[in-house]
Amino acid sequence: MQFFKVHGLGNDFILVDLVKQEWPGGEDLFETARLLCHRQFGIGADGLVLLRASPRADAFMQIINADGSEAEMCGNAIRCVAKYLYERGGIKKEVMHIETRAGVMVPRLVLENGRVAAVRVDMGIPRLERQDIPMIGPPGRVINEPLVLEGQTFHITAVSMGNPHCVLFVPDVEQVDLHGLGPKLEKHPLFPRKTNVEFVQVLNRSEVRVRVWERGAGPTLACGTGACATVVAGVLNNYSDRVVKVHLPGGTLLIEWMEDDHLYMTGPAEEVFCGQISCRE
Amino acid sequence: MQFFKVHGLGNDFILVDLVKQEWPGGEDLFETARLLCHRQFGIGADGLVLLRASPRADAFMQIINADGSEAEMCGNAIRCVAKYLYERGGIKKEVMHIETRAGVMVPRLVLENGRVAAVRVDMGIPRLERQDIPMIGPPGRVINEPLVLEGQTFHITAVSMGNPHCVLFVPDVEQVDLHGLGPKLEKHPLFPRKTNVEFVQVLNRSEVRVRVWERGAGPTLACGTGACATVVAGVLNNYSDRVVKVHLPGGTLLIEWMEDDHLYMTGPAEEVFCGQISCRE
Repeated sequence: MQFFKVHGLGNDFILVDLVKQEWPGGEDLFETARLLCHRQFGIGADGLVLLRASPRADAFMQIINADGSEAEMCGNAIRCVAKYLYERGGIKKEVMHIETRAGVMVPRLVLENGRVAAVRVDMGIPRLERQDIPMIGPPGRVINEPLVLEGQTFHITAVSMGNPHCVLFVPDVEQVDLHGLGPKLEKHPLFPRKTNVEFVQVLNRSEVRVRVWERGAGPTLACGTGACATVVAGVLNNYSDRVVKVHLPGGTLLIEWMEDDHLYMTGPAEEVFCGQISCRE
Repeated sequence: MQFFKVHGLGNDFILVDLVKQEWPGGEDLFETARLLCHRQFGIGADGLVLLRASPRADAFMQIINADGSEAEMCGNAIRCVAKYLYERGGIKKEVMHIETRAGVMVPRLVLENGRVAAVRVDMGIPRLERQDIPMIGPPGRVINEPLVLEGQTFHITAVSMGNPHCVLFVPDVEQVDLHGLGPKLEKHPLFPRKTNVEFVQVLNRSEVRVRVWERGAGPTLACGTGACATVVAGVLNNYSDRVVKVHLPGGTLLIEWMEDDHLYMTGPAEEVFCGQISCRE
């Protein structure tokens, strides 16, 4: 079986093209994904991405997480898939249609010397009403609202990008006790479905530095929906403009909150190596 | 650059054969190793293993850890190297000579149907005198000696296999608070150079179950010197015979404490995949 190891800002995947080859893995796809994603005994990755033919798009992208569960969509993965399809899959289109379990996505390629330097993805519309986050309390938006945690008062802004985000602006993200505060905010009783947490340092109106505590995962190198929520919160608090470079531990995303209310994320995709399982001499 | 991803009981390595190809990596070998070993941005491994020609052995094995430091020798790595040399390197010898920074090692292959099922490695002679561990206190050996930690009394046996080991026999290794006790024992003032810690459950005279807290690394899937120290401590306390199966989280090692006082470790080696960095179509 041929595969490619790819990543978007350190969120890494094993990409297997099932248009070019038949699935040679085990019968239980989810168990095989778990084995392949194991970092010591397998290839090692956050997830397995399978490319299949689609009757209504350039390809169908299936994402299976390292724990064997299936993800509907992932902004970091789709950038890698778009790059692969252009550079190796023979799909020479600057605007692609990729079918996912969350619908057909339309990534746009940023080309440099015939190679894919970055990919722009529509991340959808933010939802701001308290019950849409969801968050407990009266109707309205949650902007710079005080939240008391162990006697200390924080100010939070809540944004849903399909998943909940709790954004806090701080003077210096390096000084934040991410492992101490992250899980307490994630599981705060105000958030009935828990929440992702973003600590944001404003560098200027078009640049921020962010550390993310992901719901169920802890600190991660990059979170696309978190970067979007950060920019929405920055605009709502008048800290930032609507086009912002978001610096995450794994690298930088450009987020644009456009007039159609959609957020667009532009970021890199990298191919690290190609591999072959069970290659005999 | 062609490489092979291999592991011995989950201790995993990127193996690059520099007899067959020139080093195509960066000029700074140690920095390149760090990048290649990164689990998200690189190939991902505990270390990079380079094979070179040796004037006095079948090959020279150089090990660079994921942090860029160099290791003199590693029992898990040498099993993988012996398997590679036999199956892919054209060295069809059941007894090989492999030069390392710790001298020439002589692994012996266990063959099944022309493939390498396991490799037996001489792990050297244990040292038992207290100052050789090293451990603070009067001369003599440390066998089933009480050690008080936060009001609780443990009984320890100390063994050096070139590195220090503190072995504790327990009724059930699954019940051990490894993250709580491990670091406290590792840094106990009795051990001036710190110590590895093994919690051992005796299943019968020829089988034990072990969880290891490695000095400087925490819990690991397998530790060859720890398995050896465990068997020495088992014999000294008359819990076990001199030939013992040691079950570790990553798999099983057979340890033999022979009449020449040497410990021999037999364990598996696995090739997971072969890869190519910067493969262009």
